[in-house]
Amino acid sequence: MARRGASKGIELWSRAIKCIPGGNGLLSKRPERYLPDLWPTYFCAAKGVEITSIDGAKYIDMAQMGLGSSILGYANAELNAAVCEAVGAGVNCTLNAPEEVYLAEKLIELNPFAGGVRFARTGGEAMATAVRIARAYGGRTQVALSGYHGWCDWYLAATLQGENSLASHLLPGLDPKGVPPGLKGTAIPFLYNDIDDFERVMQENPDVGIICIEGARYDFPNKEFLDAITAYSRKKGLVVISDEITSGWRMTDGGVYKINGFQPDIVVYAKAMGGGFAISAVVGRQDVMDAAQDTFLSSTMWTERVGFVAGLKTIEILCREKAWDHLIAIGEKIGFGWSTLARKHGLSIKVTDFKPLITMKFGDQDKSLLLQTLFTQEMLERGYLAASSVYVSLAHTSEVVESYLEAVDAVFSVLAEALEKDDISKRLKTRPKSDAFQRLTR
Amino acid sequence: MARRGASKGIELWSRAIKCIPGGNGLLSKRPERYLPDLWPTYFCAAKGVEITSIDGAKYIDMAQMGLGSSILGYANAELNAAVCEAVGAGVNCTLNAPEEVYLAEKLIELNPFAGGVRFARTGGEAMATAVRIARAYGGRTQVALSGYHGWCDWYLAATLQGENSLASHLLPGLDPKGVPPGLKGTAIPFLYNDIDDFERVMQENPDVGIICIEGARYDFPNKEFLDAITAYSRKKGLVVISDEITSGWRMTDGGVYKINGFQPDIVVYAKAMGGGFAISAVVGRQDVMDAAQDTFLSSTMWTERVGFVAGLKTIEILCREKAWDHLIAIGEKIGFGWSTLARKHGLSIKVTDFKPLITMKFGDQDKSLLLQTLFTQEMLERGYLAASSVYVSLAHTSEVVESYLEAVDAVFSVLAEALEKDDISKRLKTRPKSDAFQRLTR
Repeated sequence: MARRGASKGIELWSRAIKCIPGGNGLLSKRPERYLPDLWPTYFCAAKGVEITSIDGAKYIDMAQMGLGSSILGYANAELNAAVCEAVGAGVNCTLNAPEEVYLAEKLIELNPFAGGVRFARTGGEAMATAVRIARAYGGRTQVALSGYHGWCDWYLAATLQGENSLASHLLPGLDPKGVPPGLKGTAIPFLYNDIDDFERVMQENPDVGIICIEGARYDFPNKEFLDAITAYSRKKGLVVISDEITSGWRMTDGGVYKINGFQPDIVVYAKAMGGGFAISAVVGRQDVMDAAQDTFLSSTMWTERVGFVAGLKTIEILCREKAWDHLIAIGEKIGFGWSTLARKHGLSIKVTDFKPLITMKFGDQDKSLLLQTLFTQEMLERGYLAASSVYVSLAHTSEVVESYLEAVDAVFSVLAEALEKDDISKRLKTRPKSDAFQRLTR
Repeated sequence: MARRGASKGIELWSRAIKCIPGGNGLLSKRPERYLPDLWPTYFCAAKGVEITSIDGAKYIDMAQMGLGSSILGYANAELNAAVCEAVGAGVNCTLNAPEEVYLAEKLIELNPFAGGVRFARTGGEAMATAVRIARAYGGRTQVALSGYHGWCDWYLAATLQGENSLASHLLPGLDPKGVPPGLKGTAIPFLYNDIDDFERVMQENPDVGIICIEGARYDFPNKEFLDAITAYSRKKGLVVISDEITSGWRMTDGGVYKINGFQPDIVVYAKAMGGGFAISAVVGRQDVMDAAQDTFLSSTMWTERVGFVAGLKTIEILCREKAWDHLIAIGEKIGFGWSTLARKHGLSIKVTDFKPLITMKFGDQDKSLLLQTLFTQEMLERGYLAASSVYVSLAHTSEVVESYLEAVDAVFSVLAEALEKDDISKRLKTRPKSDAFQRLTR
């Protein structure tokens, strides 16, 4: 496995930050999130779990898999054949693509509570569409929410509540400018899996009309928490949205909501649903979704064909292969491997319980970022793109994981030695990575 | 040319409206906008300007060309080859697609006032991104706007000003539910090409921080109108956004703003820029765009590769072919043909002056919708998808237009006879089409 430097990648990134504020359109693909100044940063080609960087080096992706979108593995032959056939037949016509209907029908079949579907292209758009529909349906503006739900105004309005109000929701330190002050009070955060906080927020905000939670992030929602939301929303006639953009298709043939018998009114999918291509969906109860007709939701690119075709084929493959069984088993193997190796080397780590997006946290809070950076640096030298999370894909085989864990064994040994000698910083060939979404500005 | 019925299309549409509120994601692709119950509605394949409907009938598209997105013609071989090569190499990776940088650099080269670019997937998203950045930059929330700018809250907030406040802006009768009332007063419409109305709005709303107009719609902005906007915005330090989603790439190697020497701070592109694939861009002055780093703008699907590759290749072809010369000449030929034939048959029509999206309006207001519907019905029977506008593409040759005008000649004759005998309704095999965006609800 070639393990050359990343000079072309670094050079191109230096051009990127000159013409694109932040360097790209997604925080989680910025090199400072992994290994500043050393991360390969750009790819030419990717197949299965193997990536060829712009420098011609080959790496195994044990990290993000396109932030979870490439759930089938990169460049899945069956998916690509379907997409290229559609491309050959024209993608954006004056007439409609039939696959828009087929995909809507398939989503209703897989989400039997639902009677209506609207599509968008990105997760953020789909969430804004869902909230618009929920507001149009119930006539109430205020949303109580937990977790991360994207870049749109309706969500970031929560930061108008006061400093760091989304600190527990993936966005610590976020104080986004440009969100209209008139939205203050329209989005109120509550803590995930915390019934007391949920009830406090509901009591303090009797006008809440919509509740929005993630299907799962690193941790599962517990049943009592979901039951409390259901009981309250039924009593008050609220619209409940389950954001399954990250969690969807990884544990069931649809959302994680199915596992707990949770009954949202709207479910939102994106990421994995298109196997890497841009498609997102708002799937909801018939009467709720019909409110889409009382508002204005229309976009040329929402009717482009590639997204529908990719969605249909990806769902077909996922369901045929019962992909979630594989994703859970592989995630479990990775998590078990991490825990076992951490014990072996005397490292303190915590492994979270959402297997298909398996995540470890280094226990030593002070040194956590340093350790993560050293882990990524050492793994990269061994031919792996590795971070503290793995979005498992269908292309991650047991053999891939076993080889990966051999490398982790060696790297954990380095980490343990660095901790013992208290020389992590000295071993780093670059500055530490930035935390989560914290570093929003230059 | 096969001219069978549209039974499969109509049947699929009846399934669509059961599972998708409104039947699809774009008003302008709904059959009631053209020929209710008779429009072919769905395509299987499209190549050049020829569409094969789901019923196997072939039509020449003299209407929307994917609402202007398929500017190269359908399934352009060169564009498709580039896209399929990218698809084969993987589209959504943990590392970034280099084409994101190349496309940003190309857009800055073609928009020399600009220093920064952010991408999205759809026009609506790109406009919301532009407004967020402008608000973050200037610290002022209020937008004065003219024209159509999509489905997002920031724009529809204008309808909170009072009934029919967007009536002159493509959205008559729009009263969208679900837009937060706290946004009232954040978006103020003024009339296009009306300096007096612009100045009135500015005087009445001294807190306006952003001005947003379309590059062109059916009519050009006149120079005095643009000069008034420039003078006012310079004096007050406002951010000016030119929405070139519809107009872009059709008259210049970028926006229509270049023609009048207009100097916006931000230009927004979508539709044509991707040749039918989903990509949109916010291109702006360096200092303004840098405010993107003071807010939160991030989406997984914004970094998917197909959009960048399609954008680069489409722009390459458009610039190489100087496509705008062709689009303008063909649009002129169509407009001249319409006018000549209308005179010949004694029909009163008005032809607008934005040639690449050439548009005719039947002069007889009362009967306008009936005449348009009869026009579409008769043209369809002659093998054309035809409406009152044509989005000209590179694939529309002079020969295509000449054959089309022969059909228009015959159909105008039918229209003239119907007007004379006052029996338009009797000749219609279906109910009249709905007006513009007016029919938003079932």
